[in-house]
Amino acid sequence: MRFTSEQRLDDGVCERPFTIGEIPGILWTPASASPSASAPLILLGHPPLGLQRMYPRLVARARRAAADGFASATIELPGSGDRPRWPAVEQARADLRRTMSAGRRVGDEVVDALVLPLVERAVPEWQTALDALLSLPEIGGPVGYSGGVISIGVRLAVVEPRVSAAVLFAGSFVPRAILEQARRVTIPLHVLLQWDDEANDRQSALDLFDAFGSQEKTLHANMGGHTGVPEFAGEAAAGFLARHLK
Amino acid sequence: MRFTSEQRLDDGVCERPFTIGEIPGILWTPASASPSASAPLILLGHPPLGLQRMYPRLVARARRAAADGFASATIELPGSGDRPRWPAVEQARADLRRTMSAGRRVGDEVVDALVLPLVERAVPEWQTALDALLSLPEIGGPVGYSGGVISIGVRLAVVEPRVSAAVLFAGSFVPRAILEQARRVTIPLHVLLQWDDEANDRQSALDLFDAFGSQEKTLHANMGGHTGVPEFAGEAAAGFLARHLK
Repeated sequence: MRFTSEQRLDDGVCERPFTIGEIPGILWTPASASPSASAPLILLGHPPLGLQRMYPRLVARARRAAADGFASATIELPGSGDRPRWPAVEQARADLRRTMSAGRRVGDEVVDALVLPLVERAVPEWQTALDALLSLPEIGGPVGYSGGVISIGVRLAVVEPRVSAAVLFAGSFVPRAILEQARRVTIPLHVLLQWDDEANDRQSALDLFDAFGSQEKTLHANMGGHTGVPEFAGEAAAGFLARHLK
Repeated sequence: MRFTSEQRLDDGVCERPFTIGEIPGILWTPASASPSASAPLILLGHPPLGLQRMYPRLVARARRAAADGFASATIELPGSGDRPRWPAVEQARADLRRTMSAGRRVGDEVVDALVLPLVERAVPEWQTALDALLSLPEIGGPVGYSGGVISIGVRLAVVEPRVSAAVLFAGSFVPRAILEQARRVTIPLHVLLQWDDEANDRQSALDLFDAFGSQEKTLHANMGGHTGVPEFAGEAAAGFLARHLK
């Protein structure tokens, strides 16, 4: 893990872009973080649109996390941003777009081709990033995961015991294989659902919520489309993480 | 409206049982309430089990409301507690119990016979209570409704313009006529759903949530049965009321 620069934001949050091998990422630590007062960590998931494009929303979430005493970090997804293009996934995305704009039902094969390769590559990368982040003296545990492609969050919750609570955003297609894995998730979950999400099937999201094996799972459904999550819903998600990671 | 007694609870909350005609009720005002600093009001709905049996849960909610600066009040439902028995509704309740314990589907007629008469009588009584409560100098507006038989909350939200936000508990059967009225509800809503509620059909609750006409409506679904609402869900509901009534 190599830090490539460092800046202090106006609220004292320290922002440090880094690379781990080929993977770029960003670490934010609260003004109060130090080797003697190490902070819990939130992994900030995001859709595969590239870190640069997602930066404004990510830094807002990082500031919110820092205000609660959390460090937060994110990494670029494979095939996104400045990382090498990934023709197979781009093809799957084009298939999805064509199916949706023709008003046809999105078949399981299209969803599998789009999401499963991303999960297969991204989850081990998040784990590698977690190894590196937890080796820093200013980062402690526990670790939460928040947001992004829900299938990545589900798989991470199943395979990574260091993640002890997760906020998941029901805003993307979910392969059947991931729905099966959901039964094996046992950590506390806070699931956000935009009731009128144009890019998400509501019934699939409810089925996924039902499938989770966690004893504590909460669904917060709000009005509006994919990017219309109300501010109070963000606050509630932050409250959930604060309750479980402190 | 006639107050029948008055006591101070240990946290300074003033508890005053009252009667309005034949209807008993209880008013709780925060220690800080006075004619010069009138408090917003939360109407505390509850299931038709009688005020005496519901008292422990009601007073806990009243204390929480008072801590947020709210007055709160409740009245006995028709046919419950010490009020005259209501044979028609008791018959409907017996029919429901028989249907459920036989594992049969609860038909629309059973639901209508159980819930609609209760709504028809209870809603005007809540409005009469509201008239009396708002005439007290220590009670101001705005007014919220929280909890109880969801069909009563829906009808009250449609017909009573003084109620400006509501927390509804998706924990009882909903007649088709009420589902139709839900489209006319426009106030901000916070709906609690117990995902595994043995006395409530989950799909009906989701259909009802979908039907509400409100621009701001939030569904909080949590694990557990009818009476298992987790403490953090109660906190979230209190936060919703604080956001909208202050």
